[in-house]
Amino acid sequence: MRDILEAVASGELSPAAAEARLAGYASTDAGRFDAAREHRRGVPEAILADGKIPEETASLALTALETTGRALVTRTDEATVAAVSERVGEARPGATVDVDERARTVVAHAPGFERPSLEATVAVVTAGTSDAAAAGEAATVLREMGATVDRIDDVGVANIDRALDQREALRAADALVVAAGREGALPTVVAGMVDAPVVALPVSVGYGFGGEGEAALAGMLQSCSVLSVVNVDAGFVAGAQTGLIARAVSAARDG
Amino acid sequence: MRDILEAVASGELSPAAAEARLAGYASTDAGRFDAAREHRRGVPEAILADGKIPEETASLALTALETTGRALVTRTDEATVAAVSERVGEARPGATVDVDERARTVVAHAPGFERPSLEATVAVVTAGTSDAAAAGEAATVLREMGATVDRIDDVGVANIDRALDQREALRAADALVVAAGREGALPTVVAGMVDAPVVALPVSVGYGFGGEGEAALAGMLQSCSVLSVVNVDAGFVAGAQTGLIARAVSAARDG
Amino acid sequence: MRDILEAVASGELSPAAAEARLAGYASTDAGRFDAAREHRRGVPEAILADGKIPEETASLALTALETTGRALVTRTDEATVAAVSERVGEARPGATVDVDERARTVVAHAPGFERPSLEATVAVVTAGTSDAAAAGEAATVLREMGATVDRIDDVGVANIDRALDQREALRAADALVVAAGREGALPTVVAGMVDAPVVALPVSVGYGFGGEGEAALAGMLQSCSVLSVVNVDAGFVAGAQTGLIARAVSAARDG
Amino acid sequence: MRDILEAVASGELSPAAAEARLAGYASTDAGRFDAAREHRRGVPEAILADGKIPEETASLALTALETTGRALVTRTDEATVAAVSERVGEARPGATVDVDERARTVVAHAPGFERPSLEATVAVVTAGTSDAAAAGEAATVLREMGATVDRIDDVGVANIDRALDQREALRAADALVVAAGREGALPTVVAGMVDAPVVALPVSVGYGFGGEGEAALAGMLQSCSVLSVVNVDAGFVAGAQTGLIARAVSAARDG
Amino acid sequence: MRDILEAVASGELSPAAAEARLAGYASTDAGRFDAAREHRRGVPEAILADGKIPEETASLALTALETTGRALVTRTDEATVAAVSERVGEARPGATVDVDERARTVVAHAPGFERPSLEATVAVVTAGTSDAAAAGEAATVLREMGATVDRIDDVGVANIDRALDQREALRAADALVVAAGREGALPTVVAGMVDAPVVALPVSVGYGFGGEGEAALAGMLQSCSVLSVVNVDAGFVAGAQTGLIARAVSAARDG
Amino acid sequence: MRDILEAVASGELSPAAAEARLAGYASTDAGRFDAAREHRRGVPEAILADGKIPEETASLALTALETTGRALVTRTDEATVAAVSERVGEARPGATVDVDERARTVVAHAPGFERPSLEATVAVVTAGTSDAAAAGEAATVLREMGATVDRIDDVGVANIDRALDQREALRAADALVVAAGREGALPTVVAGMVDAPVVALPVSVGYGFGGEGEAALAGMLQSCSVLSVVNVDAGFVAGAQTGLIARAVSAARDG
Amino acid sequence: MRDILEAVASGELSPAAAEARLAGYASTDAGRFDAAREHRRGVPEAILADGKIPEETASLALTALETTGRALVTRTDEATVAAVSERVGEARPGATVDVDERARTVVAHAPGFERPSLEATVAVVTAGTSDAAAAGEAATVLREMGATVDRIDDVGVANIDRALDQREALRAADALVVAAGREGALPTVVAGMVDAPVVALPVSVGYGFGGEGEAALAGMLQSCSVLSVVNVDAGFVAGAQTGLIARAVSAARDG
Amino acid sequence: MRDILEAVASGELSPAAAEARLAGYASTDAGRFDAAREHRRGVPEAILADGKIPEETASLALTALETTGRALVTRTDEATVAAVSERVGEARPGATVDVDERARTVVAHAPGFERPSLEATVAVVTAGTSDAAAAGEAATVLREMGATVDRIDDVGVANIDRALDQREALRAADALVVAAGREGALPTVVAGMVDAPVVALPVSVGYGFGGEGEAALAGMLQSCSVLSVVNVDAGFVAGAQTGLIARAVSAARDG
Repeated sequence: MRDILEAVASGELSPAAAEARLAGYASTDAGRFDAAREHRRGVPEAILADGKIPEETASLALTALETTGRALVTRTDEATVAAVSERVGEARPGATVDVDERARTVVAHAPGFERPSLEATVAVVTAGTSDAAAAGEAATVLREMGATVDRIDDVGVANIDRALDQREALRAADALVVAAGREGALPTVVAGMVDAPVVALPVSVGYGFGGEGEAALAGMLQSCSVLSVVNVDAGFVAGAQTGLIARAVSAARDG
Repeated sequence: MRDILEAVASGELSPAAAEARLAGYASTDAGRFDAAREHRRGVPEAILADGKIPEETASLALTALETTGRALVTRTDEATVAAVSERVGEARPGATVDVDERARTVVAHAPGFERPSLEATVAVVTAGTSDAAAAGEAATVLREMGATVDRIDDVGVANIDRALDQREALRAADALVVAAGREGALPTVVAGMVDAPVVALPVSVGYGFGGEGEAALAGMLQSCSVLSVVNVDAGFVAGAQTGLIARAVSAARDG
Repeated sequence: MRDILEAVASGELSPAAAEARLAGYASTDAGRFDAAREHRRGVPEAILADGKIPEETASLALTALETTGRALVTRTDEATVAAVSERVGEARPGATVDVDERARTVVAHAPGFERPSLEATVAVVTAGTSDAAAAGEAATVLREMGATVDRIDDVGVANIDRALDQREALRAADALVVAAGREGALPTVVAGMVDAPVVALPVSVGYGFGGEGEAALAGMLQSCSVLSVVNVDAGFVAGAQTGLIARAVSAARDG
Repeated sequence: MRDILEAVASGELSPAAAEARLAGYASTDAGRFDAAREHRRGVPEAILADGKIPEETASLALTALETTGRALVTRTDEATVAAVSERVGEARPGATVDVDERARTVVAHAPGFERPSLEATVAVVTAGTSDAAAAGEAATVLREMGATVDRIDDVGVANIDRALDQREALRAADALVVAAGREGALPTVVAGMVDAPVVALPVSVGYGFGGEGEAALAGMLQSCSVLSVVNVDAGFVAGAQTGLIARAVSAARDG
Repeated sequence: MRDILEAVASGELSPAAAEARLAGYASTDAGRFDAAREHRRGVPEAILADGKIPEETASLALTALETTGRALVTRTDEATVAAVSERVGEARPGATVDVDERARTVVAHAPGFERPSLEATVAVVTAGTSDAAAAGEAATVLREMGATVDRIDDVGVANIDRALDQREALRAADALVVAAGREGALPTVVAGMVDAPVVALPVSVGYGFGGEGEAALAGMLQSCSVLSVVNVDAGFVAGAQTGLIARAVSAARDG
Repeated sequence: MRDILEAVASGELSPAAAEARLAGYASTDAGRFDAAREHRRGVPEAILADGKIPEETASLALTALETTGRALVTRTDEATVAAVSERVGEARPGATVDVDERARTVVAHAPGFERPSLEATVAVVTAGTSDAAAAGEAATVLREMGATVDRIDDVGVANIDRALDQREALRAADALVVAAGREGALPTVVAGMVDAPVVALPVSVGYGFGGEGEAALAGMLQSCSVLSVVNVDAGFVAGAQTGLIARAVSAARDG
Repeated sequence: MRDILEAVASGELSPAAAEARLAGYASTDAGRFDAAREHRRGVPEAILADGKIPEETASLALTALETTGRALVTRTDEATVAAVSERVGEARPGATVDVDERARTVVAHAPGFERPSLEATVAVVTAGTSDAAAAGEAATVLREMGATVDRIDDVGVANIDRALDQREALRAADALVVAAGREGALPTVVAGMVDAPVVALPVSVGYGFGGEGEAALAGMLQSCSVLSVVNVDAGFVAGAQTGLIARAVSAARDG
Repeated sequence: MRDILEAVASGELSPAAAEARLAGYASTDAGRFDAAREHRRGVPEAILADGKIPEETASLALTALETTGRALVTRTDEATVAAVSERVGEARPGATVDVDERARTVVAHAPGFERPSLEATVAVVTAGTSDAAAAGEAATVLREMGATVDRIDDVGVANIDRALDQREALRAADALVVAAGREGALPTVVAGMVDAPVVALPVSVGYGFGGEGEAALAGMLQSCSVLSVVNVDAGFVAGAQTGLIARAVSAARDG
């Protein structure tokens, strides 16, 4: 502990980073950032932009960057992206900021930060264009956890030949996230075609009865194939859960 | 009207049959049997055995037989089948009684009754064994309406190759009833493979959340393919609706 | 395939149209347009404007026009209509653009495009003024599929004489779409008056308990008459499903 | 109070009847019977047999008979009917016991009890045979309140001509109870045909989605016609509410 | 019919009023106004402003004024009130326009229009301030139907003494509308205190589970007292239903 | 620990009691009995008989008796009561067994067991006879925790004078459990009349929409009065929660 | 009463304050302020800003200040805070105005007003940052009722060590409010660690299925620990209910 | 194929086994047994006894035994266990039959059948005794897939120390199934303590609102920790999904 405090005294370490190392989290005006959790499971702590004003999100992102070397922001909009980019750019000149508009994510890395690397591939599969945001969120998390991500898009079951055309690619993955809205049937079909574990991701696409993702969620929970499910639009959770599987497989490969 | 009454007087016509011709329905102790409806759309009036005691059902079946020449009983159990068979056997010696245990239907024809015949084929498709009762009810109605019925069973989407193997048979039908429980994805896949109209039939097979057919119903209403839907386990309605389509096509063919 | 590529090389064929012919769909910045589906069932691929920005919708509409000779946009608002009209007008000078404000649809035809023509009539029936959008969407699809559309409006069951006055017109159709919100009773009454198949279309009109179309949907699924149902406000699906019936009847008439 | 106690002492009045006069209710082993409520609104206090063992019901019925001169039991089965008849027969030899199997009600009158008589008619209307229990419960209550009851049965909207045939009878009533299960559309149609107040009574007849009366309840709450609603199968409440209207009208007529 | 047409020709009668007399409704750009319904039950046809643009509402209101001598607009906002007032002011100079901000209603009477007058009183009772809009809508309808309205406000059950203080006033009414949100207990308590029929009006006041009026609706349907119910916020229906009762009582009084 | 083991060796202590002291729970064939929890909060650990066969319940009850000196069994039926009485009678001759049929509870005390005694009163209030089981369960728990229990029964809001008559008794309690089914309004009315904390207990009494206690639960959660709620039929929890309040008050009184 | 009127006459007492003393409430343009309730249970009457325009809220706040010496406003936004501050500042120069942005509450005290003081502590516990508003509302009410409030924040169960670290603080409270969104597990864990009564406060934080606080509410109602529950986001009720417990304990301590 | 047919001819292979090898499934009177699925993912095909009569289940079990060397029956009762044991004992004398009453599973192995063996451990964790059936089903599947199963029971969050005591055992697993009913909080707590993937298994234990597993399901979907979920009581799916993870890890270890 002494060396941490000395590093603060000498300016090598910011007070936030020191607090994170000592207490496991860093306090900010916009709330608490939980740095310790990241160490435990290799899952980056996500900052949910939805329901926060851009300045709060930017402030939490900067704290994340300072305490863990990385910030992952989800459910962003244009204003949030601008606020985060500007704030990080000013405060940490050498940091990289990676924006994915479709996935609605922003990832910032401090200079010198090194992403982990796993020896495992996760396929992120979508039924249609409107599943892109949830699936993209999953893909971003997976990349940050170090997995190789293979995107297989627009293979919804209304035209079954598309999924069949991707049979080889689907079978090559160590784990799969399969996203679908509407009737949510794709994960069932895919899980019937592969050996690896499938995590089904229902998407809030649809209308009328069951149209905010409940039809897809219920269908996935009732699936005739073996698979497990996350909540509606929970791309982060789907990515992190398959990331944990990829991590276990990679560790076993490393022996 | 005079001739009807004279036929009653002479014993040629039972009072029930006379009442049916004059008023459109026949009164029994077990309720009213609606004979007129049958004439309108060619859909046989079904007697739902569920919730009736076997004697009531048998009594209504006999009335149906006397007024329309045919009785169609659905959702039967063993006791109902026995009661109907016995009652019909006693009262109308030459009548045929056709029992389908899987479909839980009984059909009786008066001597000389002639079923209509349509120049059209309806495919009745199931995802799995447990869809047999609902699908069988649909098939029975279709046969009574005169359609050719093509059964295509056990082609659920968890093993997509089975449905693909039946592609030709599916495409040969003029209309299709597609039954599925659990996640209810089969109608979506089938409707993506054929040109003819598909009526989706959700089945109350499953467990836990959405397990009494709601997941299947919601999924079918949200389908990415063009199809229409009937209520959970409404095999009779699915059969009758595709029967009406078959009838329209057959009439056009007869043109 | 060679001739397609040569046509691209010579400028006769746009790259999008070539991709559509070869791969079955065309990629755009705003997502993928599924051209192949249109060929299969004669159902035009609809572009749902809801949830897209006007430019995305216009871009997809142009792609549709280029690859299939037609664009059908649903759930439009003023801005979308303007964007589509302008974009199509600029890029394809001779194309026609047909706007239906009530139905919230826009249809564009490339010069020389010929709509199919079916020898069959579909009645599109509404209970009240507020069912106009959903019913109009159904009517637009039906017209594009080539069916003759007969609109029968404002015949809700609270004043039963209006429906009775239209008995002849209702009976003249080969298939019917019947739209109703609130308690959704009209399809049941109409299906009791006609021989042809009825597809019931629940509309999200109402308030309080069951007011977003669930009361109408549930009532239609419970109907005492034979009919099938589509999801709440699914005018496109109701139109396309009756269009498929009309197509089958027309083909049978053509022998 | 003195005279009540003296009547008890002399055996003219049972202790239960005395308690009812003094406290407004009578205690029994099977619970409390609320005698006072009956005086207030002219609505007989009903004893719900459902969920009670036959002996409890019989015991409460006897208490009712002793304290108010009348017992009204609802939702009876065979065993309850037998227990009530036997118990009343033994304890109050001159009492009448009136059993309605369809309505599942039993009414007992003490010797000399005189039912009130209202100068008003209530129509009790059903859509189909399966509405008979709920409607019958309403009719029993109405008769006990003194109204003239006009039963109009089996006029469901799937065959609209039946309801139209009864137009005059429907219009002759001072108030109407209209019972319907499944899609529950009949009250809407009837309320569109009459001037008098309509109380809609949803019945738990149906299956699948919305099949325990919710579809009918929701449809009646969403009705395009002016009407009010009671809970599913609440025949007693529907009868009592229209009985209160009949009572108000009758009082006004008596002027 | 000839005289109607001659009146149109001579300018005595507007085409809209003529159409209303002949066809029972008048067509406008904003939809159809149902004039005939008003004659049947004495219930003024309401124009629901919610979901219409102010100009549409104003146009329908003018048509109503011309065809029936009266316009009743519900669920208004400031813009609608302004549009109706202006449009009516311009087109029908002598007409009165009566705005009730709390009730969100506007009533316009043509010069010389005479409201009916009933010899009956309806109490309109509220639990709290937030029930004012729904209750006010009921009161407006009742006044237009000719009933005497007695408002009894802020007597919610959390302070039971307030309701008790109003016992005499409550008992003086021929019928009662009782409005309540949150737990919706007031109608039950009031119906236990009076002899006249009570129509319960649930209001969408509350938050969290059951907070959009469902808790109140469910509680009223489950009431231990005899009462009937309308949908959430259905002030118009509650007013009209008690208006029909008042009308029946008044007619009986008039003998 | 040594002395515990020596007591086992000498037969002074049963192995179950020893395990409970050492591990906090005792293992039986019928599951684990959690003895430690009882020490923490003074709340007796209840054995839920529902869903267990009588022998399992009896076995757990005996274990409870041996390890804590007391057994509390809830949701009993006749067979369970017999099994527990017999088993306890055989194995622990001097134990008392107290059966409450209405409350469906059985309490056994080992010889010499002394119930705690609190200096605080809890009122247990019911709306009607059918709330007796849930309220009785609460009363049993409270007595076992040592509180004085004051039962105030049948004061439902449909006859508000009954509750008013009990105003003094209600105000005398240190805490109150108020049980009600149907519309569940009583806790709101009571909480408006007293100063002490009220815990509302919804009961699964009712029928149709909201009839399994949901209407009561929702109404209590929406209450205009200050109160907190437990789940439907959770008499044990309501008793224990008010028992904890009584315990806190009693401890403060003891100073 | 005479002295109240004389105080009004002399200007010592405002008419609103006089009305409050005489009638128990004060009428304003924005509705009725219920002053009497505050005297009964020591719970300040809250003015809910949600759904009111700032001027109405400010007007009610001023009335509260004049009649009870205090105003408590909940669910405020910036505009409301400004309106209340300005209005109070102008009309009652010496009054204090205390704004809590996180809790979204405003409290004003008239000059000389003295808050009660209880000899009891209530812990207000949160699972995460997003529970701050609901928990803050509870804390504000508790402080106004005179309890000592101990805030224990960010101890959600996903990192169980945080809750364990606070074991001593949790055990020191006389009662606890435990707020949690998402899965809402914290109250169960805390109630398993303490002896005092726990009131669980579900918070509308989450997304997808069960995401508006229903998952948390359902989980708390199903809790394996003894606790009672308030509605989603009902911070005021949770605070007031634990305040009533604190008041009972404090009174007992005062002896 | 020739050799298969020759083996049938010579009696070496049963017709069922031959059909399974050729067609991927075997037909029986009781339905179709899907043998091919087992080969794909190493997940044994389960025969669900619920809803089948014992003879059907026994017949399917024998077919499974003959075609794959193994039968796994789930959701058994006593009669099913007896039927399967007897039928297998008669037809395949050397087969082993392993019955797990708590888990409600039966496993039969043909003589010489060798279960696969994975180099991976899955922890199966329960919150309480009533989770035993679902968790046991998961454990049985896992054992049949070859994983080492570590049972960690009765560590529910109402007594958090129990879970903490098992921290090391929990961390030693390669994957975890965590079963919980009621509020379902255990998976969230466990997933916060371990690095490996957690599959949450909601159990239908509880009562009242959310009591059939929906509260647990919703809570798990809303979990603050990273985990995925299966349907209520879906022990088979939870076991198979973690078995697939174990298989992937084991394969990686084998390198």
